[in-house]
Amino acid sequence: MEHIDIISEKTGFFVSRKPFSLELGDELPETTIAYRTWGSLNRERNNVVLVCHALTGSADADVWWDGMFGEAMGFDDTKDFIICSNVLGSCYGTTGPLSLNPLTGKRYGPDFPAVTIRDMVRLQRLLLEQLGVEQVKLVVGASLGGMQVLEWGCMFPDKVRALMPMGISGRHSAWCIAQSEAQRQAIIADRDWKEGWYEPQAQPARGLAAARMMAMCSYRSFDNFQERFGRDKRDDATFQAESYLRYQGEKLVNRFDANTDITVTRAMDSHDLSRGRGEYNRVLESITMPVKVLSITSDILYPKEEQEELAHHIPDSRIEYLHESYGHDAFLIEVDKVSRLVKEFRDEVTAKDSSAA
Amino acid sequence: MEHIDIISEKTGFFVSRKPFSLELGDELPETTIAYRTWGSLNRERNNVVLVCHALTGSADADVWWDGMFGEAMGFDDTKDFIICSNVLGSCYGTTGPLSLNPLTGKRYGPDFPAVTIRDMVRLQRLLLEQLGVEQVKLVVGASLGGMQVLEWGCMFPDKVRALMPMGISGRHSAWCIAQSEAQRQAIIADRDWKEGWYEPQAQPARGLAAARMMAMCSYRSFDNFQERFGRDKRDDATFQAESYLRYQGEKLVNRFDANTDITVTRAMDSHDLSRGRGEYNRVLESITMPVKVLSITSDILYPKEEQEELAHHIPDSRIEYLHESYGHDAFLIEVDKVSRLVKEFRDEVTAKDSSAA
Repeated sequence: MEHIDIISEKTGFFVSRKPFSLELGDELPETTIAYRTWGSLNRERNNVVLVCHALTGSADADVWWDGMFGEAMGFDDTKDFIICSNVLGSCYGTTGPLSLNPLTGKRYGPDFPAVTIRDMVRLQRLLLEQLGVEQVKLVVGASLGGMQVLEWGCMFPDKVRALMPMGISGRHSAWCIAQSEAQRQAIIADRDWKEGWYEPQAQPARGLAAARMMAMCSYRSFDNFQERFGRDKRDDATFQAESYLRYQGEKLVNRFDANTDITVTRAMDSHDLSRGRGEYNRVLESITMPVKVLSITSDILYPKEEQEELAHHIPDSRIEYLHESYGHDAFLIEVDKVSRLVKEFRDEVTAKDSSAA
Repeated sequence: MEHIDIISEKTGFFVSRKPFSLELGDELPETTIAYRTWGSLNRERNNVVLVCHALTGSADADVWWDGMFGEAMGFDDTKDFIICSNVLGSCYGTTGPLSLNPLTGKRYGPDFPAVTIRDMVRLQRLLLEQLGVEQVKLVVGASLGGMQVLEWGCMFPDKVRALMPMGISGRHSAWCIAQSEAQRQAIIADRDWKEGWYEPQAQPARGLAAARMMAMCSYRSFDNFQERFGRDKRDDATFQAESYLRYQGEKLVNRFDANTDITVTRAMDSHDLSRGRGEYNRVLESITMPVKVLSITSDILYPKEEQEELAHHIPDSRIEYLHESYGHDAFLIEVDKVSRLVKEFRDEVTAKDSSAA
C-alpha cells in the first residue's frame, strides 16, 4: 500500500512530476499531495483558511478536529475556503516512507530522505498555487501544525494574512528532541524493525505502540491522569491507566506507520525558525502579520513560556490561554473554546481588511 | 550470573533459608540479602541510619549517593551505623529475577513472583534482626527509596525513630503507573525479549535502553535539558540531547537487567500506604514519628503537591524544598544540600532523644 487506507474518499491528490528539492540536500523525483477542502474559493481568491495537522494527523481535519467545523465555527465553510493537506513525509496520501520511489519501483521505507518543516510548507505552497489561491487569510495549527504555521509566516509573508500557532515554540527544545529520540529508539528496538525494511503489514507494532504510550504521557498531565484513572483497576487487576495507554498504543498502530513516525518526529526536531535567518529573537521580530498564539498552561511538552516568548517578540501578536489541566492535547479536547478563539481572530482579520479596503 | 557483578567486594550477604511469604500470595523458598554497612553499632544498638535505594540502585550507597558520606555529613560513620541493602527483586545481590530458583536450579527470570514495597521492607527487617539492630534512628531514601521509608513507618512504627522520604508520594499515581508501563512495553517489544527468557548476556538491551531514555526524561525537566543541551549538535550532526540520552541508555544496559526493571517498576506501581489500612488521609495521620519530607519543586514525576499532601496529613512532619530545576533527580545532584538537611534532621532527632532521656 502507498498510504494508510483510511483517508476520506473525498481526498484530492495533486501530483507534481517536477523534482522537489529538499532543504537538507536530497531531492524527490516527484511528489503527491493529498488534501481536503471545505467551502469554496471566493472571486478574489483570498478567503482561504489553511489548516495544518500534527504528528499523526491527516488531511481529514473534520475527523481529527471534529467540532471546529460549521457555520459560525472556527472553520466556517459558508464563508471560507478551508484547506488541509497531509504533510510531506506522512502516510496519509502525501509522499512519504510508504510511497513508491519511482526510480526504484520499491517503497522508500527507511531510505525516505530527511525532510524539514520548510519542505512541508513549500509543498503546501505548490498545492495552493495549483488550487488557484491568491492569499491565505489565516494559517492555523497546533504542535507540528503550529510549526508549519510559523514557517508560513517566515517563508511566504506576502501570501499569508494572519497566523494562529497553538501549543508550539519557535524551535524544538532539547526536552522535545530527547523525548522524540526515546520514542524512536523504542521503535528501533522492536523485533520486527528490520532496519526499517519491514513489510507494512508486519511493522514493528509493539515498539511503535510503546513509543505512542510514551508520547501520550507527554501529551497529557499529572492532574489529567489522576482525574481519569487514579489507582483504579479493571476486573483483571490491571491498572486503568495501563489499560488506557495500551489501548492508545494499539489504536495508533492500526492507523500509523513506524518509518513515518521516525521521519516526521525528526522533521519536528529540525524545527527552528532562526536556521539560516539570523538571531532567534530578531527572526521573531521580523514576523509582521497579525499572530494569535494559543498557549496551554498545562502543556509539559511545549510549556507556556515558549508561547509567551513568541508573543513577546512577534510585534503584532496576542496570546490566549487554555487553562484546563488536559496538557498538550488540550487543543483537541477543548474544541469549543478553540473554535471560538479561531473564529474571533478570523473575524478580526477580516474586519481589518474590510476597513482598510 | 546471579547478580550484576559490579557490586563492592565489601558487600555482605545474609541468606535466610526459611520460606519468605510475599504480600501478593507467592512464596520464595529462600532469600539472600546483599548489604553494606558503614560505621559501627553502638552499645544500645540504636544508632542506625537505614538508607533505601531507588529503582536502579544497589547497596553501594557510597557510590550512587557519593557526597552524602563523611564526618559531619548526612551519613556520618563516626557516629552512626549506616546500613543499605539491595531491595528484593533487584539484581545487585539480593534475590531477584537473576537469582537461581532453588526448586528448579534455573534462574527465576520472568517467573520471579510479583513483589511489593512491603515485601522489600520485611526482608530488610530480617536483615536488621540478623545484624542485632534494636531500633533505627532514621530511615532515609528517595523515589523507590522514599516508598520504603514510608512503609517502614507504617509497618514497624516501634522500630523506627524518624523518617525522611524524598521525592515521593504515599501511593503511586496514575501518571507514574502510565509511564512505568510505557517503559516496560519498550522492553517487551525488543527483539531479544524472548518473553523474558533471554540469556543475561543477550538481554533486550535496546528496549531497556529506550525505557531508560524515557525514564531519564521524566527524571529531569524542560529547563534542565535546555540549559545543558539547547539545540547544540555534535560534530556528526546529532543533537547533544539525543547523544546524552543514548549514552545514558547504554550506561544502564551495561549494569542493569530487563526482568529486574519490570519487577521493580511493578513493585513501585503497587505502592499504596492505604492498601488494607483504611482511608488514605487517615493512614497518613496515623504515622506518629517525626517525618521530614523533602520535596523537589521541579519534579514532574512526583510533583510537590504529593509531598505537601504527606506533610499536611502526617502529624509530626516538616517539609523542605529543593528549588533548582534539576527535576526528580535533584536528590542525586544537589547532594550538599541534601546531606545538610539529613544531618540537621538526624541531629534534631538525636537531641530530642537525649533531652527525653
